[in-house]
Amino acid sequence: MRICRYNNNRVGVVSGDEVADVTAVVMDCLPPQQWPFKRGDAFVAALDDLRPKLEEAAATAPRQKLADIKLLSPVANPGKIIAAPVNYMKHIEESREDQGINFGTEVSLIDRYALFLKANSSLVGASEGVQIHHDDGRRTDHEVELGLVVGKTARNVSLENALEYVAGYFIGLDITIRGTEDRSYRKSLDTFTVLGPWLVTADEFGDPGNIRLSISVNGEPRQDANTRDLIWSVAKCVSFASQSYTLEPGDVILTGTPEGVAPIARGDVMRAEIDRIGEMTVNVR
Amino acid sequence: MRICRYNNNRVGVVSGDEVADVTAVVMDCLPPQQWPFKRGDAFVAALDDLRPKLEEAAATAPRQKLADIKLLSPVANPGKIIAAPVNYMKHIEESREDQGINFGTEVSLIDRYALFLKANSSLVGASEGVQIHHDDGRRTDHEVELGLVVGKTARNVSLENALEYVAGYFIGLDITIRGTEDRSYRKSLDTFTVLGPWLVTADEFGDPGNIRLSISVNGEPRQDANTRDLIWSVAKCVSFASQSYTLEPGDVILTGTPEGVAPIARGDVMRAEIDRIGEMTVNVR
Repeated sequence: MRICRYNNNRVGVVSGDEVADVTAVVMDCLPPQQWPFKRGDAFVAALDDLRPKLEEAAATAPRQKLADIKLLSPVANPGKIIAAPVNYMKHIEESREDQGINFGTEVSLIDRYALFLKANSSLVGASEGVQIHHDDGRRTDHEVELGLVVGKTARNVSLENALEYVAGYFIGLDITIRGTEDRSYRKSLDTFTVLGPWLVTADEFGDPGNIRLSISVNGEPRQDANTRDLIWSVAKCVSFASQSYTLEPGDVILTGTPEGVAPIARGDVMRAEIDRIGEMTVNVR
Repeated sequence: MRICRYNNNRVGVVSGDEVADVTAVVMDCLPPQQWPFKRGDAFVAALDDLRPKLEEAAATAPRQKLADIKLLSPVANPGKIIAAPVNYMKHIEESREDQGINFGTEVSLIDRYALFLKANSSLVGASEGVQIHHDDGRRTDHEVELGLVVGKTARNVSLENALEYVAGYFIGLDITIRGTEDRSYRKSLDTFTVLGPWLVTADEFGDPGNIRLSISVNGEPRQDANTRDLIWSVAKCVSFASQSYTLEPGDVILTGTPEGVAPIARGDVMRAEIDRIGEMTVNVR
């Protein structure tokens, strides 16, 4: 099943080039909460229970063309956004060779850096676009990644069981300014985390181990790789993260970007595509 | 005014060694929310409006001894937890000299690193204690810091106006494993962000520019410094952060730790104290 958030916080089930509006069912099933709110995403936490109701509602719900809606992030309330640095060998090689990426700092393996965080306030959906913050010639790069959302609380999960904790997958853009600052800073400016176009549930997505991912800018191919070349597999990212901190429903993990990162500028149009998910178009402003 | 969260999500007004239970007033004033929730802390966002009602309620509310309650984090739902690295010169000097802190990596000024993030899932209150995660001899350190919570949405705020966006102050412990991983990883394990013992509203706290902060472990003094030695002032931390990303009500900023960081071990008792806030005792387990 493919689930999107769109327009003014509506929830849709995507089928072909159409979306069925199942918002009423979702709101019926998620009771209002009193402050303080439980950390994480209440919809993702309830997704297993909601699935049959969403399928039933989608069959008769009003439909719109995908082309006519504004896509928001498929995860509304992540507790945290975790990302994997330098997780493809060829991206490490290009980072070592290009002073515009490494800024004179050492580039090592993911084993040395582990994971990093991105700010929740940087999160947008495909239709919201990416904002360039620097007019001083400072380099802002695209990074396309396979992203996932955690569906169940996870702590010290084994490699073998890790994928059972994934609720779904989506395309992630980990937008980055290059420089000497901490990764968690350079990758957290407003609009620097794009998730979309929708969430594909884990059962429909299947094994994430052989998935092609690519991005073009203004029609020019930039990154084109396959998750079989990940240094830490998707399962390893989930398992390792769960050894470090409690993973909660709604936590997002971006699994790392391959070679081909390059600058973007205002007016650019990014088109990202990942097997079994689809494609999304994101404007740079 | 001093406001704490305690026991099972109760809200109290602290006066002397007692706490007045004003939970009912808070719940009356904060309407339940439907998913998706607005990012950030609804109580902090409403604090200006709630103040007169809390004061009135506290005068007649049932009271308990502080010694008899379990203190939680004064901020329940931070949107993000931002922290300032190497923001006291003497801490930079000790970090450069001690291989156990720097792990062979370069130690530079905050201007080079900017800010970093800590995971929301690492957040606890004073009574919840800190957990040691590593049994392999890996070093876990205390770092005491002046912490603050943002009260109003802030974007591109000037240095002069920055403190107007602060709702209140508290003690922050930025617990850290030493190693080569990203700061946002090493400082985000469960229980590694302790806030407390309560929030002191910005009007009562006053100017944060000359504030003594200290921590002892098992009665032995470890860190003892003053915010007048901050490299980036409290106002600069807020202003700089607001140039980078939108600050939202409930966002927490930890302003950096002074010299004297040192290891903690299971069974240790940390006692942190900051001028105009008070002291908090935190157990290590």
